[in-house]
Amino acid sequence: MGGARTKRMPRAVREQQMLDAAVRIFGQRGYMAASMDEIAELAGVSKPLVYLYLNSKEDLFTACIRREATALAEAVRAGVRTDLPADRRLWDGLQAFFAHTAEHPDAWSVLHLQARTHGELFAAETAAMRKELVAFVTRLVAIAAREAHRDPDLPEHEVAGLAEALVGAAESLATWANSTEGVTARQAATTLMNFAWAGLGNLMSGHPWTPPAGDA
Amino acid sequence: MGGARTKRMPRAVREQQMLDAAVRIFGQRGYMAASMDEIAELAGVSKPLVYLYLNSKEDLFTACIRREATALAEAVRAGVRTDLPADRRLWDGLQAFFAHTAEHPDAWSVLHLQARTHGELFAAETAAMRKELVAFVTRLVAIAAREAHRDPDLPEHEVAGLAEALVGAAESLATWANSTEGVTARQAATTLMNFAWAGLGNLMSGHPWTPPAGDA
Repeated sequence: MGGARTKRMPRAVREQQMLDAAVRIFGQRGYMAASMDEIAELAGVSKPLVYLYLNSKEDLFTACIRREATALAEAVRAGVRTDLPADRRLWDGLQAFFAHTAEHPDAWSVLHLQARTHGELFAAETAAMRKELVAFVTRLVAIAAREAHRDPDLPEHEVAGLAEALVGAAESLATWANSTEGVTARQAATTLMNFAWAGLGNLMSGHPWTPPAGDA
Repeated sequence: MGGARTKRMPRAVREQQMLDAAVRIFGQRGYMAASMDEIAELAGVSKPLVYLYLNSKEDLFTACIRREATALAEAVRAGVRTDLPADRRLWDGLQAFFAHTAEHPDAWSVLHLQARTHGELFAAETAAMRKELVAFVTRLVAIAAREAHRDPDLPEHEVAGLAEALVGAAESLATWANSTEGVTARQAATTLMNFAWAGLGNLMSGHPWTPPAGDA
């Protein structure tokens, strides 16, 4: 009730504070167990104000997913300079991805675990974000293949498959890194680079892995 | 009402028929939209009998997850011969995995999409299966590293991270392959082998990918 508390604050600023609090509580407690009381308290506002601004627990959660999905996609895009060679772009992109998920573990939990565990509506929201991420990585892989010259016609299916594999591996590693003591974002990025690049690199320079002879 | 229908059938057989029908309906309609009427009809039994045997929609779904998780794990294990070299074991394991998910798309949908979308209890069931799969792959990678001699002391964290990446990539690719026209199980397995093996292979023979010079 001090002067600072009663000072009027732009709606947009207050809303971001509510979302900050909501991401923290949803990420740590899970969607079901999270209480609107706790979110309002952490945001320093009244519960009716949260409902006035964000309408319902469901809408608040959807707003969290949207904001955090956008932030993650922007962090990855900002980390990649298109004037650098393909392996450098992949490395920079992976570092940006793992740095962001490590710095915002509650946001990653909301996006990857909570959103998928609580109904088809939320799952569809994250599926849209994932699709964008896969499209971004697909372009990256396709450009890398063109740069490698040797195999400029890597089939479209193959490129899409590689991008799906890479995104799936990154999601899995981010969740593992955030729940494993002593694993840094840089280590996670290095592991995936080791896993992926030499494989992609060989593939693009015309040295694919081949099934053993006699294998149908 | 013919003679064949009224013949008594062992409970275990009837239960498997109900689970077959349930996996199909849950996989195609999703957990929420799936109706017990439709499941009973497809199984050729009365709805009360489904409730008598499986108790509730929730318990029926849990039984589906357990049965399909066990079947997938067994298919992968059965595909891998421990007397073969590491890359052959990985290739065989991947082929077994993608063949199984391609032949049982409804089961894969139940395990990977439905189970994670409908509450923490179901998510915990599939997390347990996933943990087993990661442990299996971790052993495979650790053995491969030992075989490669050059780097027998690949740090435990690194091995665990590689296994997480591989399982995440496989999950992502299986869902993509099942929803993409014209992608066979063998193609999905080859894509992941290309993605992963050359990378793992280089790593284990002492040729890891290294960050660009000057990169902090």
